[in-house]
Amino acid sequence: MNGLVFDGRLTHRTDLPTPDPTPGEALVRVTVAGICRTDLEIVDGYMNFRGILGHEFVGTLITPTTSLKAGARVTGEINAACGTCPRCRSGRHRHCSERTVLGIAGRNGVFADYLVLPERNLHVVPDSIEDDDAVFVEPLAAAMRIAEQIPVTGRIAVFGDGRLGHLVAWSLRDAGGNVTVVGRHTDRLTALRADGLETAGADTTLSDRFPVTVDCTGTPDGFRSALEATEPTGTLVLKSTFHGSPPMDLAPVVIDEVTIVGSRCGRFEPALEALRDGRIPVGRLVEGSYPLERGVEAFEHARRTLKLLLRIG
Amino acid sequence: MNGLVFDGRLTHRTDLPTPDPTPGEALVRVTVAGICRTDLEIVDGYMNFRGILGHEFVGTLITPTTSLKAGARVTGEINAACGTCPRCRSGRHRHCSERTVLGIAGRNGVFADYLVLPERNLHVVPDSIEDDDAVFVEPLAAAMRIAEQIPVTGRIAVFGDGRLGHLVAWSLRDAGGNVTVVGRHTDRLTALRADGLETAGADTTLSDRFPVTVDCTGTPDGFRSALEATEPTGTLVLKSTFHGSPPMDLAPVVIDEVTIVGSRCGRFEPALEALRDGRIPVGRLVEGSYPLERGVEAFEHARRTLKLLLRIG
Repeated sequence: MNGLVFDGRLTHRTDLPTPDPTPGEALVRVTVAGICRTDLEIVDGYMNFRGILGHEFVGTLITPTTSLKAGARVTGEINAACGTCPRCRSGRHRHCSERTVLGIAGRNGVFADYLVLPERNLHVVPDSIEDDDAVFVEPLAAAMRIAEQIPVTGRIAVFGDGRLGHLVAWSLRDAGGNVTVVGRHTDRLTALRADGLETAGADTTLSDRFPVTVDCTGTPDGFRSALEATEPTGTLVLKSTFHGSPPMDLAPVVIDEVTIVGSRCGRFEPALEALRDGRIPVGRLVEGSYPLERGVEAFEHARRTLKLLLRIG
Repeated sequence: MNGLVFDGRLTHRTDLPTPDPTPGEALVRVTVAGICRTDLEIVDGYMNFRGILGHEFVGTLITPTTSLKAGARVTGEINAACGTCPRCRSGRHRHCSERTVLGIAGRNGVFADYLVLPERNLHVVPDSIEDDDAVFVEPLAAAMRIAEQIPVTGRIAVFGDGRLGHLVAWSLRDAGGNVTVVGRHTDRLTALRADGLETAGADTTLSDRFPVTVDCTGTPDGFRSALEATEPTGTLVLKSTFHGSPPMDLAPVVIDEVTIVGSRCGRFEPALEALRDGRIPVGRLVEGSYPLERGVEAFEHARRTLKLLLRIG
């Protein structure tokens, strides 16, 4: 089959074996996939992953499962957990110590004709959600995770106007927050204002601090700005990682008694509902699409865009 | 009056003016004071403070207040708030943006014959608490602050076996936690085991991660160790600051969805009650005392001890 493989270098391959599901796993034909910042970071060396990249997808179930028929349109949660360790037994299967992660750790990803995932990871996509929107279920679930972790009321500043910043800002507003997006791209901020969100340039001085901030910048500077903008006894949600070990002054965390909440993946159900109900305009993020065989080119382009899709099946 | 002044260099002075309380402030004769790590850090350049050092004290009220008679034995909260700003009005007076802090920011401290503090900052010390124990009210209140911020149940690892580590470990056990202290001083760990606490050497590999950890080390390495030892979706309480901006990898905060809770000062009432009821053996931390005129020498010694007192009045 075809696939985009990273082995220290990103290449499009046509000679890959179609994956063979083990018992409990399902084979899925990939229809559309989305390129995520994590994919770009892996190409830059993050996670030391080697294999087929990609984890945002919608596809067609090939092998029937105990609960789904072949032909079902599905997407899937990316953490494949053991189901038996103490973390899984305590409901924290996304933190299973034995987990593999689709296209990120120990498991081939979705930038290929076929993928396999545990059956229990699959979710049927409602008919009313188009393929190009359905690929956003995974990152939207991650954005919506925040509302499971902290109360979302009052003023919230989201730092970063990239794809994650958009999803987080929209989903926090959907959850009841009064959201200001702080970013560097005038055009994106203008569009966000048209959505009814407040915005501020990253180089402007904010007139007031916020009880809740979210760092979606993926940069140490963004984290520092978010920390500075967080009110004493406030909460900073750390949503994006950054490379390496940059210099970091954590004294304000103690002095201002700030709470930092690390936030990663979320449940798919609320994200599917939000898309089904048209509450989050994810489609606006798509700035182009490529066929799989031009995936290497798409990766370069993805660094300068909000979201690129790969059309596969 | 006499006092220990830091003006870029720490000196004992005999020519200081006795402070003159403004309306709403009270004059206190200092009896005993404690040297804290923050005092040592200020001498090393932290906070850019200039003036009389010190913030842990017990003393005698000289000027009567609206609620206290002259002669009352008192200690006092160190944050002098404006009482009118939005933070004060929302009950966060310890985070007042206009505050001065006793011996730390904008207000002379307690290593002197006399101090002034707002009347509302003073607390009467119950007769059953001796002076040498009463000087621990402020750091014990800071340690007990944690139990106001997070639920204290189950396994907790306290990193650091210094004065703060002891107070935090004792107070978290007092609050119901199953506490392990991770430290570098064999003798201190032995004594903590005699208290019934569990201990581990800082260089040993911990057999398991903890749902709650507390960093009391004041070092970047200590913070990193605490973060490594925190279970996914667990909580790391950051209780001590460290100098400058050391290299820091915060990716595990996101990947493991750790919550970091910054924690500073606490309410005095619970600390006074704990000392009155003999629940926290603070006296064991005192490894010596000096008269005020030998304060400079005491500061050097304080770097190698759990707690030194200055006997003043």
